[in-house]
Amino acid sequence: MKEIIAIIRSNKMKKTRDVLEVLGFPAMNARRVLGRGHQRAIIDDVNIPFPPEGIEESRGTMRYIPKRMISIMVEDRDVELVVEAIMKVNHTGNIGDGKIFVCPVDDAVRIRTGENGDVALQ
Amino acid sequence: MKEIIAIIRSNKMKKTRDVLEVLGFPAMNARRVLGRGHQRAIIDDVNIPFPPEGIEESRGTMRYIPKRMISIMVEDRDVELVVEAIMKVNHTGNIGDGKIFVCPVDDAVRIRTGENGDVALQ
Amino acid sequence: MKEIIAIIRSNKMKKTRDVLEVLGFPAMNARRVLGRGHQRAIIDDVNIPFPPEGIEESRGTMRYIPKRMISIMVEDRDVELVVEAIMKVNHTGNIGDGKIFVCPVDDAVRIRTGENGDVALQ
Repeated sequence: MKEIIAIIRSNKMKKTRDVLEVLGFPAMNARRVLGRGHQRAIIDDVNIPFPPEGIEESRGTMRYIPKRMISIMVEDRDVELVVEAIMKVNHTGNIGDGKIFVCPVDDAVRIRTGENGDVALQ
Repeated sequence: MKEIIAIIRSNKMKKTRDVLEVLGFPAMNARRVLGRGHQRAIIDDVNIPFPPEGIEESRGTMRYIPKRMISIMVEDRDVELVVEAIMKVNHTGNIGDGKIFVCPVDDAVRIRTGENGDVALQ
Repeated sequence: MKEIIAIIRSNKMKKTRDVLEVLGFPAMNARRVLGRGHQRAIIDDVNIPFPPEGIEESRGTMRYIPKRMISIMVEDRDVELVVEAIMKVNHTGNIGDGKIFVCPVDDAVRIRTGENGDVALQ
Protein backbone atom coordinates (compact mmCIF):
# COMPACT_ATOMS: atom_id res chain seq x y z
CA MET A 1 0.00 0.00 0.00
CA LYS A 2 1.38 3.41 -0.96
CA GLU A 3 0.61 7.08 -0.53
CA ILE A 4 1.12 9.03 -3.71
CA ILE A 5 1.75 12.73 -3.10
CA ALA A 6 1.75 15.10 -6.06
CA ILE A 7 2.48 18.82 -6.16
CA ILE A 8 0.88 20.17 -9.32
CA ARG A 9 -0.21 23.39 -11.01
CA SER A 10 -3.50 24.77 -9.66
CA ASN A 11 -5.04 24.88 -13.13
CA LYS A 12 -4.42 21.13 -13.55
CA MET A 13 -6.29 20.19 -10.39
CA LYS A 14 -9.72 19.63 -11.92
CA LYS A 15 -8.45 17.52 -14.82
CA THR A 16 -6.21 15.52 -12.49
CA ARG A 17 -9.13 14.79 -10.19
CA ASP A 18 -11.40 13.91 -13.11
CA VAL A 19 -8.89 11.48 -14.62
CA LEU A 20 -8.21 9.80 -11.29
CA GLU A 21 -11.93 9.46 -10.62
CA VAL A 22 -12.52 7.87 -14.02
CA LEU A 23 -9.66 5.44 -13.33
CA GLY A 24 -11.35 4.42 -10.07
CA PHE A 25 -9.53 6.60 -7.55
CA PRO A 26 -12.11 9.10 -6.28
CA ALA A 27 -10.61 9.41 -2.81
CA MET A 28 -7.96 12.04 -2.36
CA ASN A 29 -6.77 14.66 0.06
CA ALA A 30 -5.99 18.00 -1.53
CA ARG A 31 -4.77 21.34 -0.32
CA ARG A 32 -3.58 24.63 -1.70
CA VAL A 33 0.06 25.52 -1.19
CA LEU A 34 2.28 28.33 -2.40
CA GLY A 35 5.47 27.61 -4.36
CA ARG A 36 8.42 29.96 -4.13
CA GLY A 37 10.84 30.86 -6.89
CA HIS A 38 11.46 27.94 -9.21
CA GLN A 39 8.58 26.05 -7.66
CA ARG A 40 11.01 24.79 -5.08
CA ALA A 41 9.74 26.00 -1.71
CA ILE A 42 6.14 25.32 -0.86
CA ILE A 43 4.29 27.22 1.81
CA ASP A 44 0.83 26.46 3.10
CA ASP A 45 0.11 29.44 5.22
CA VAL A 46 -3.38 30.36 6.35
CA ASN A 47 -2.35 33.94 6.95
CA ILE A 48 -1.25 34.56 3.36
CA PRO A 49 -4.31 35.25 1.23
CA PHE A 50 -4.15 33.20 -1.93
CA PRO A 51 -3.87 35.25 -5.10
CA PRO A 52 -6.29 34.56 -7.95
CA GLU A 53 -5.63 31.33 -9.83
CA GLY A 54 -2.53 31.47 -11.99
CA ILE A 55 -1.46 34.90 -10.84
CA GLU A 56 1.89 35.19 -9.13
CA GLU A 57 2.10 37.04 -5.86
CA SER A 58 5.01 39.26 -4.97
CA ARG A 59 5.92 39.26 -1.28
CA GLY A 60 9.01 41.19 -0.49
CA THR A 61 11.67 39.91 -2.84
CA MET A 62 10.18 36.42 -3.17
CA ARG A 63 7.48 35.31 -5.52
CA TYR A 64 4.88 32.75 -4.57
CA ILE A 65 3.00 30.67 -7.10
CA PRO A 66 -0.17 28.84 -6.10
CA LYS A 67 0.14 25.05 -6.37
CA ARG A 68 -1.95 22.12 -5.25
CA MET A 69 -0.75 19.19 -3.21
CA ILE A 70 -2.78 16.00 -3.52
CA SER A 71 -2.46 12.75 -1.61
CA ILE A 72 -3.93 9.43 -2.76
CA MET A 73 -3.76 6.05 -1.00
CA VAL A 74 -3.47 3.15 -3.46
CA GLU A 75 -2.69 -0.56 -3.61
CA ASP A 76 0.87 -1.40 -4.68
CA ARG A 77 -0.34 -2.66 -8.04
CA ASP A 78 -1.94 0.71 -8.83
CA VAL A 79 1.09 2.92 -8.13
CA GLU A 80 2.39 2.92 -11.69
CA LEU A 81 -1.04 3.63 -13.18
CA VAL A 82 -1.71 6.57 -10.86
CA VAL A 83 1.77 8.05 -11.30
CA GLU A 84 1.52 7.74 -15.09
CA ALA A 85 -1.97 9.29 -15.11
CA ILE A 86 -0.82 12.25 -13.01
CA MET A 87 2.20 12.74 -15.29
CA LYS A 88 0.06 12.51 -18.44
CA VAL A 89 -2.31 15.23 -17.24
CA ASN A 90 0.32 17.51 -15.70
CA HIS A 91 3.23 17.33 -18.12
CA THR A 92 3.72 20.52 -20.16
CA GLY A 93 7.52 20.37 -20.43
CA ASN A 94 7.90 23.71 -18.67
CA ILE A 95 9.48 24.40 -15.28
CA GLY A 96 6.83 24.13 -12.61
CA ASP A 97 5.13 20.94 -13.82
CA GLY A 98 5.55 19.61 -10.32
CA LYS A 99 6.72 16.46 -8.58
CA ILE A 100 5.29 13.16 -7.42
CA PHE A 101 6.40 11.26 -4.32
CA VAL A 102 5.60 7.64 -3.45
CA CYS A 103 5.61 6.78 0.26
CA PRO A 104 5.06 3.46 2.02
CA VAL A 105 1.86 2.83 4.01
CA ASP A 106 1.68 -0.22 6.27
CA ASP A 107 -2.06 -0.60 6.64
CA ALA A 108 -5.49 0.97 6.24
CA VAL A 109 -8.61 0.36 8.34
CA ARG A 110 -12.22 1.23 7.47
CA ILE A 111 -13.69 2.32 10.79
CA ARG A 112 -17.28 1.38 9.87
CA THR A 113 -16.52 -2.27 9.16
CA GLY A 114 -13.15 -2.91 10.75
CA GLU A 115 -11.84 -4.18 7.39
CA ASN A 116 -8.14 -3.60 6.90
CA GLY A 117 -5.54 -3.94 4.16
CA ASP A 118 -6.15 -3.22 0.48
CA VAL A 119 -9.89 -3.86 0.82
CA ALA A 120 -10.15 -0.84 3.11
CA LEU A 121 -8.95 1.38 0.27
CA GLN A 122 -11.84 0.52 -2.05
CA MET B 1 7.75 3.88 15.15
CA LYS B 2 4.56 4.63 13.25
CA GLU B 3 2.42 7.57 12.21
CA ILE B 4 -1.27 6.87 12.64
CA ILE B 5 -3.44 9.05 10.40
CA ALA B 6 -7.19 9.04 10.98
CA ILE B 7 -9.91 10.81 9.01
CA ILE B 8 -12.91 11.09 11.31
CA ARG B 9 -16.21 12.92 11.77
CA SER B 10 -15.81 16.46 13.11
CA ASN B 11 -18.19 15.78 15.98
CA LYS B 12 -15.99 12.88 17.17
CA MET B 13 -12.86 15.01 17.41
CA LYS B 14 -13.19 16.04 21.04
CA LYS B 15 -13.96 12.54 22.30
CA THR B 16 -11.17 11.07 20.19
CA ARG B 17 -8.68 13.56 21.58
CA ASP B 18 -9.91 12.99 25.13
CA VAL B 19 -9.60 9.20 24.87
CA LEU B 20 -6.13 9.40 23.35
CA GLU B 21 -4.99 11.82 26.03
CA VAL B 22 -6.27 9.54 28.80
CA LEU B 23 -4.42 6.63 27.17
CA GLY B 24 -1.21 8.65 27.27
CA PHE B 25 -1.11 10.11 23.76
CA PRO B 26 -1.63 13.85 24.17
CA ALA B 27 0.47 14.83 21.14
CA MET B 28 -1.32 15.02 17.85
CA ASN B 29 -1.53 17.06 14.71
CA ALA B 30 -5.07 17.84 13.59
CA ARG B 31 -6.63 19.73 10.75
CA ARG B 32 -10.01 20.33 9.24
CA VAL B 33 -10.67 18.86 5.83
CA LEU B 34 -13.72 18.59 3.63
CA GLY B 35 -15.02 15.23 2.40
CA ARG B 36 -16.84 14.92 -0.89
CA GLY B 37 -19.73 12.62 -1.73
CA HIS B 38 -19.40 9.29 0.05
CA GLN B 39 -16.64 10.71 2.21
CA ARG B 40 -14.21 9.74 -0.49
CA ALA B 41 -12.52 12.92 -1.62
CA ILE B 42 -11.05 15.14 1.02
CA ILE B 43 -10.21 18.77 0.40
CA ASP B 44 -8.34 21.04 2.76
CA ASP B 45 -8.81 24.38 1.15
CA VAL B 46 -8.19 27.62 2.96
CA ASN B 47 -10.33 29.50 0.49
CA ILE B 48 -13.45 27.47 1.13
CA PRO B 49 -15.11 28.75 4.29
CA PHE B 50 -16.02 25.85 6.51
CA PRO B 51 -19.73 25.37 7.05
CA PRO B 52 -21.03 25.04 10.60
CA GLU B 53 -20.26 21.75 12.28
CA GLY B 54 -22.23 18.83 10.88
CA ILE B 55 -23.92 20.85 8.17
CA GLU B 56 -23.28 19.77 4.61
CA GLU B 57 -22.22 22.37 2.11
CA SER B 58 -23.43 22.40 -1.44
CA ARG B 59 -20.88 23.61 -3.96
CA GLY B 60 -21.96 23.24 -7.53
CA THR B 61 -23.09 19.67 -7.91
CA MET B 62 -20.76 18.32 -5.24
CA ARG B 63 -21.35 18.17 -1.54
CA TYR B 64 -18.61 18.67 0.98
CA ILE B 65 -18.77 17.30 4.49
CA PRO B 66 -16.45 18.64 7.17
CA LYS B 67 -14.08 16.00 8.53
CA ARG B 68 -11.01 16.03 10.73
CA MET B 69 -7.67 14.50 9.91
CA ILE B 70 -5.49 13.66 12.88
CA SER B 71 -1.92 12.39 12.93
CA ILE B 72 -0.29 10.72 15.93
CA MET B 73 3.29 9.42 16.22
CA VAL B 74 3.49 6.24 18.35
CA GLU B 75 5.85 3.43 19.25
CA ASP B 76 5.27 0.18 17.34
CA ARG B 77 3.88 -1.50 20.44
CA ASP B 78 1.16 1.17 20.78
CA VAL B 79 -0.20 0.99 17.22
CA GLU B 80 -2.89 -1.58 17.99
CA LEU B 81 -4.05 0.26 21.12
CA VAL B 82 -4.34 3.61 19.35
CA VAL B 83 -6.08 2.14 16.29
CA GLU B 84 -8.54 0.25 18.50
CA ALA B 85 -9.22 3.35 20.60
CA ILE B 86 -9.90 5.47 17.52
CA MET B 87 -12.22 2.78 16.14
CA LYS B 88 -14.06 2.43 19.45
CA VAL B 89 -14.82 6.15 19.64
CA ASN B 90 -15.58 6.67 15.95
CA HIS B 91 -17.54 3.56 14.97
CA THR B 92 -21.24 4.22 14.35
CA GLY B 93 -21.76 1.65 11.59
CA ASN B 94 -22.83 4.32 9.13
CA ILE B 95 -21.06 5.44 5.96
CA GLY B 96 -18.66 8.22 6.81
CA ASP B 97 -17.16 6.70 9.96
CA GLY B 98 -13.78 7.36 8.39
CA LYS B 99 -10.49 5.57 7.85
CA ILE B 100 -7.24 4.99 9.65
CA PHE B 101 -3.84 4.66 7.97
CA VAL B 102 -0.63 3.37 9.56
CA CYS B 103 2.62 4.66 8.05
CA PRO B 104 6.24 3.84 8.88
CA VAL B 105 8.44 6.41 10.62
CA ASP B 106 12.20 5.79 10.82
CA ASP B 107 13.13 8.05 13.69
CA ALA B 108 12.16 10.95 15.93
CA VAL B 109 14.43 13.55 17.54
CA ARG B 110 13.64 15.89 20.44
CA ILE B 111 15.42 19.12 19.49
CA ARG B 112 15.81 20.31 23.10
CA THR B 113 17.75 17.26 24.28
CA GLY B 114 18.92 15.55 21.11
CA GLU B 115 17.26 12.32 22.27
CA ASN B 116 16.08 10.13 19.43
CA GLY B 117 14.09 6.95 18.91
CA ASP B 118 11.02 5.97 20.94
CA VAL B 119 12.13 8.06 23.92
CA ALA B 120 11.71 11.20 21.80
CA LEU B 121 8.02 10.42 21.44
CA GLN B 122 7.27 10.55 25.16
CA MET C 1 15.03 8.86 0.12
CA LYS C 2 13.50 10.37 3.25
CA GLU C 3 10.97 12.98 4.27
CA ILE C 4 12.18 15.06 7.19
CA ILE C 5 9.32 16.65 9.15
CA ALA C 6 10.15 19.25 11.78
CA ILE C 7 7.85 21.07 14.17
CA ILE C 8 9.64 24.23 15.25
CA ARG C 9 9.08 27.63 16.87
CA SER C 10 7.55 30.22 14.53
CA ASN C 11 10.35 32.68 15.20
CA LYS C 12 12.93 30.12 14.03
CA MET C 13 11.29 29.60 10.65
CA LYS C 14 13.21 32.21 8.69
CA LYS C 15 16.62 31.18 10.01
CA THR C 16 15.80 27.50 9.47
CA ARG C 17 14.80 28.16 5.88
CA ASP C 18 17.87 30.32 5.28
CA VAL C 19 20.26 27.69 6.63
CA LEU C 20 18.65 24.90 4.62
CA GLU C 21 18.76 26.99 1.47
CA VAL C 22 22.46 27.75 1.96
CA LEU C 23 23.09 24.02 2.47
CA GLY C 24 21.38 23.29 -0.85
CA PHE C 25 17.87 22.41 0.27
CA PRO C 26 15.63 25.24 -0.99
CA ALA C 27 12.57 23.04 -1.48
CA MET C 28 10.29 22.63 1.48
CA ASN C 29 6.65 22.48 2.42
CA ALA C 30 5.71 24.60 5.42
CA ARG C 31 2.55 25.34 7.31
CA ARG C 32 1.46 27.06 10.47
CA VAL C 33 0.10 24.89 13.25
CA LEU C 34 -0.95 25.53 16.82
CA GLY C 35 0.66 23.70 19.73
CA ARG C 36 -1.27 23.03 22.91
CA GLY C 37 0.05 22.99 26.46
CA HIS C 38 3.60 21.67 26.60
CA GLN C 39 3.85 21.87 22.81
CA ARG C 40 2.32 18.42 22.70
CA ALA C 41 -0.90 18.74 20.70
CA ILE C 42 -0.70 20.48 17.36
CA ILE C 43 -3.76 21.87 15.63
CA ASP C 44 -3.85 23.30 12.14
CA ASP C 45 -7.26 24.83 12.03
CA VAL C 46 -8.30 27.32 9.37
CA ASN C 47 -11.08 28.61 11.55
CA ILE C 48 -8.82 29.65 14.41
CA PRO C 49 -7.23 32.99 13.59
CA PHE C 50 -3.54 32.84 14.33
CA PRO C 51 -2.40 35.18 17.09
CA PRO C 52 0.54 37.48 16.44
CA GLU C 53 3.92 35.78 16.32
CA GLY C 54 5.15 34.59 19.69
CA ILE C 55 2.00 35.50 21.55
CA GLU C 56 0.12 32.70 23.23
CA GLU C 57 -3.58 32.40 22.66
CA SER C 58 -6.00 31.45 25.35
CA ARG C 59 -8.97 29.41 24.20
CA GLY C 60 -11.13 28.15 26.96
CA THR C 61 -8.84 26.44 29.43
CA MET C 62 -6.25 25.43 26.83
CA ARG C 63 -3.44 27.52 25.49
CA TYR C 64 -2.31 27.33 21.90
CA ILE C 65 1.15 28.33 20.79
CA PRO C 66 1.89 29.02 17.12
CA LYS C 67 4.41 26.60 15.65
CA ARG C 68 5.60 25.79 12.16
CA MET C 69 5.69 22.38 10.56
CA ILE C 70 8.14 21.95 7.71
CA SER C 71 8.64 18.98 5.40
CA ILE C 72 11.76 18.41 3.29
CA MET C 73 12.47 15.54 0.88
CA VAL C 74 16.14 14.52 0.89
CA GLU C 75 18.48 11.78 -0.29
CA ASP C 76 19.41 9.23 2.38
CA ARG C 77 22.96 10.58 2.56
CA ASP C 78 21.67 14.07 3.45
CA VAL C 79 19.41 13.06 6.36
CA GLU C 80 22.02 13.55 9.06
CA LEU C 81 23.12 16.93 7.68
CA VAL C 82 19.58 18.28 7.49
CA VAL C 83 18.61 16.97 10.94
CA GLU C 84 21.77 18.43 12.48
CA ALA C 85 21.20 21.77 10.74
CA ILE C 86 17.61 21.98 11.99
CA MET C 87 18.75 21.10 15.52
CA LYS C 88 21.57 23.66 15.43
CA VAL C 89 19.22 26.49 14.47
CA ASN C 90 16.32 25.47 16.70
CA HIS C 91 17.98 24.32 19.92
CA THR C 92 17.52 26.72 22.83
CA GLY C 93 17.39 24.13 25.62
CA ASN C 94 13.91 25.21 26.64
CA ILE C 95 10.68 23.25 26.43
CA GLY C 96 9.07 23.86 23.06
CA ASP C 97 12.18 23.54 20.90
CA GLY C 98 10.24 21.06 18.83
CA LYS C 99 10.70 17.66 17.23
CA ILE C 100 12.01 16.16 14.03
CA PHE C 101 10.66 13.02 12.36
CA VAL C 102 12.32 11.03 9.58
CA CYS C 103 9.99 9.04 7.32
CA PRO C 104 10.75 6.71 4.43
CA VAL C 105 9.96 7.76 0.85
CA ASP C 106 10.11 5.14 -1.92
CA ASP C 107 10.50 7.33 -4.96
CA ALA C 108 10.22 10.81 -6.45
CA VAL C 109 9.33 11.78 -10.02
CA ARG C 110 9.91 15.13 -11.75
CA ILE C 111 6.81 15.55 -13.93
CA ARG C 112 8.53 17.79 -16.48
CA THR C 113 11.25 15.29 -17.39
CA GLY C 114 10.02 11.98 -16.07
CA GLU C 115 13.25 11.59 -14.07
CA ASN C 116 12.86 9.58 -10.91
CA GLY C 117 14.90 8.64 -7.86
CA ASP C 118 17.36 10.94 -6.10
CA VAL C 119 17.94 12.99 -9.26
CA ALA C 120 14.30 14.13 -9.12
CA LEU C 121 14.99 15.77 -5.75
CA GLN C 122 17.67 18.14 -7.08
